[in-house]
Amino acid sequence: ADRGDAERLRELLGALHPADVADLMGFLSPDYREEVLAHLPSDALAEILSELDTEIREEVLETVAPATLAKVLEELDSDDAADVVDDLEDEKRVQVLAAMPETERTAIESSLAYEDETAGRIMQREVVAAPQFWTVGQTIDHFRREADGLPELFFDVYVVDPAYKPVGAAPVSHLMRAPRNTPLAQLMEPVTEIPVGMDQEEVAYIFDKYHLISAPVVEPGGRLVGQITVDDIVGVIQEESEEDILALAGVSDAGRNADVLDIIRARLPWLALNTVTAALAASVIRAFEGEINKLVTLAVLMPIVASLGGNAATQALAVAVRALASKELSEVNAYRTVFREMAVGLANGTALALVTGGVIFLLFHDVKLSVTFGLALIINLFVASLAGVLAPLVLDRIGRDPAVSSSVFVTFATDFTGFLSFLGLAALILL
Amino acid sequence: ADRGDAERLRELLGALHPADVADLMGFLSPDYREEVLAHLPSDALAEILSELDTEIREEVLETVAPATLAKVLEELDSDDAADVVDDLEDEKRVQVLAAMPETERTAIESSLAYEDETAGRIMQREVVAAPQFWTVGQTIDHFRREADGLPELFFDVYVVDPAYKPVGAAPVSHLMRAPRNTPLAQLMEPVTEIPVGMDQEEVAYIFDKYHLISAPVVEPGGRLVGQITVDDIVGVIQEESEEDILALAGVSDAGRNADVLDIIRARLPWLALNTVTAALAASVIRAFEGEINKLVTLAVLMPIVASLGGNAATQALAVAVRALASKELSEVNAYRTVFREMAVGLANGTALALVTGGVIFLLFHDVKLSVTFGLALIINLFVASLAGVLAPLVLDRIGRDPAVSSSVFVTFATDFTGFLSFLGLAALILL
Repeated sequence: ADRGDAERLRELLGALHPADVADLMGFLSPDYREEVLAHLPSDALAEILSELDTEIREEVLETVAPATLAKVLEELDSDDAADVVDDLEDEKRVQVLAAMPETERTAIESSLAYEDETAGRIMQREVVAAPQFWTVGQTIDHFRREADGLPELFFDVYVVDPAYKPVGAAPVSHLMRAPRNTPLAQLMEPVTEIPVGMDQEEVAYIFDKYHLISAPVVEPGGRLVGQITVDDIVGVIQEESEEDILALAGVSDAGRNADVLDIIRARLPWLALNTVTAALAASVIRAFEGEINKLVTLAVLMPIVASLGGNAATQALAVAVRALASKELSEVNAYRTVFREMAVGLANGTALALVTGGVIFLLFHDVKLSVTFGLALIINLFVASLAGVLAPLVLDRIGRDPAVSSSVFVTFATDFTGFLSFLGLAALILL
Repeated sequence: ADRGDAERLRELLGALHPADVADLMGFLSPDYREEVLAHLPSDALAEILSELDTEIREEVLETVAPATLAKVLEELDSDDAADVVDDLEDEKRVQVLAAMPETERTAIESSLAYEDETAGRIMQREVVAAPQFWTVGQTIDHFRREADGLPELFFDVYVVDPAYKPVGAAPVSHLMRAPRNTPLAQLMEPVTEIPVGMDQEEVAYIFDKYHLISAPVVEPGGRLVGQITVDDIVGVIQEESEEDILALAGVSDAGRNADVLDIIRARLPWLALNTVTAALAASVIRAFEGEINKLVTLAVLMPIVASLGGNAATQALAVAVRALASKELSEVNAYRTVFREMAVGLANGTALALVTGGVIFLLFHDVKLSVTFGLALIINLFVASLAGVLAPLVLDRIGRDPAVSSSVFVTFATDFTGFLSFLGLAALILL
């Protein structure tokens, strides 16, 4: 009966897409998961492995024997195999690599030699290349003969010179419609070469801009060493935009299956930093305790000035970080953008100052209080817009990620300015 | 000389990728832009048009004669052509469509009939389909004969039954390596059909999850009506994640070339809403003016409690919005996620309360003040984590976009709770 169940299970899992099986694994207990995976053939296991969440994959990898794992990894493209090997503990990594055939091992080792988040790391080494003088017919005949050696899927045939430098690319759908005697040199189109060390975010930008489906990756000398396909890029784009959202909110990525302790570790450091900056901003208030004692209404109104500044800064910040990420904000238009933000800050500040000033007059019957509040609001929204665009620009200029730590700086700037301008003006005008 | 210049200009622009020419257009004055575009052949103009930013494209479209435009649009895939037509003013749209051949006009009109941001709108109607009983050889021969009628690029041949319903897909790279006598039925793989009315965010999710390169789009009856390719999806993913970042920051999208007035329009409404909620939260302080008068230090410390709550809520909110977008947060694990957030809020609150409570004791030598501050911090961080995850969950459940308006609600909740818990506890414990 047990054997029949295993058969049935294999059948059921076989009918699902590996991505769905991977999702399913997330719902199983580790014991049951291990049992299920033991029943899968190595090619199915290979595909599921590269779909699993990192946390679950690490657990699964611990339970699979090195020899089995070596066989499983041979089924994967070099980039996916390298990803899996990267997750192994040092000892097991050595064992698994030792159990693999020479060529696969070399491919994985050289992939891991490239830095994380570079083109070298996300590329696959499997490419389809052909010399310029081949015809369409020769190329197709070659593919039919060497079918087993080809990558599982490919979209372009890279045309290379004798030094194996790419000189062009022929889309497969063009090859198929051309007469057999057409030379590749006539079919090929210019290619956008990706240097092996390029940052993955830059690669994603190029793919998006030029609507690329695949692109050849070249070594510093110009030699073709691999290719990146657009399906890898979809993952990179998701990852990069997720990084930006989380960084802006002051969270490190804790992963999908993070437990409470992981989450605390991902958030507490930012909160601690914010406590320090909030305390610094609050120290401004301490300097004006005398004023607040004279007019306690100041304590009621000052958080509104600070809060609106924070909101306005977040707006400017989010827009600037997105514009930097999509290269719409560059040195060329930086000045124009900064001036535009200053104008927006002044305009929004003035509009809100007029309305709130009016409301405050109706409530408190004190023109000086209205004027104090309004002026402070204008100053703070001006500073907020400026800080919101300058912080990411400066971080970007000095080579840091503009999404990370911008918010801490900007929140401090608007809290500090909010309290200082409102209480300072109150001391000057009101009291 | 002028003619020679035109020749040279065409040559220079011809050497650039249309996306680069479109970027270049952004730097030209409208007059010069018009002059340059007049020199371009209609196929080049077609490609540049679909790359231009919406604002510049609208300007350019106004200057091109309807008859020229009709010819230009014929060069584009139906989805890109529909995008351009959608940007035209009503009167010009009628003129341009009237100047186009019957088939192209029908294609564009039916594309525009689908709702914005649905599969029908981003798909192209040009597909390559073949009956099940064809062999690889027959298919390739057919492509060579009909080369002109094929889409510019394609990655899959959809295998259809007599009712034109897709039953499978053969990747072009598999077609090319298979012997000529292989029947398509043997080569084809299962396809993921996209219903024509599916939301584009959902389509992007499916492409990402299953690593699709192209997918057939079907009508309610199951008939093949078009295809979506992954390069369209890259744009959708960028767009959707940008929408989330901006919505979380309380900004409407003002477009790349927005002027100051557009930006103000995109930000002022959110700031106005925040003014109202900030005033509501501040009204809590007004109720405790007596307490602040007795101990003005309360006014110094209360913004720290509110600010840390705001930060903690933003963290929980960003994580929840991303998890909802990538479908990692669903009804199945909603309870677990909420409980986890509550635990994280309590833990982070307690950790920060212990440290800040200690510092406050060192500064003010008042245990009751330390306890008041610490307890308020724990309460506010608990509420912050809870509000940060509940607000997007509830909005999602009632069918609203969780990124939009979550922050306003959550900021209000943490400001309100921060002031109320600190000042309220101060009234109970301290005074």
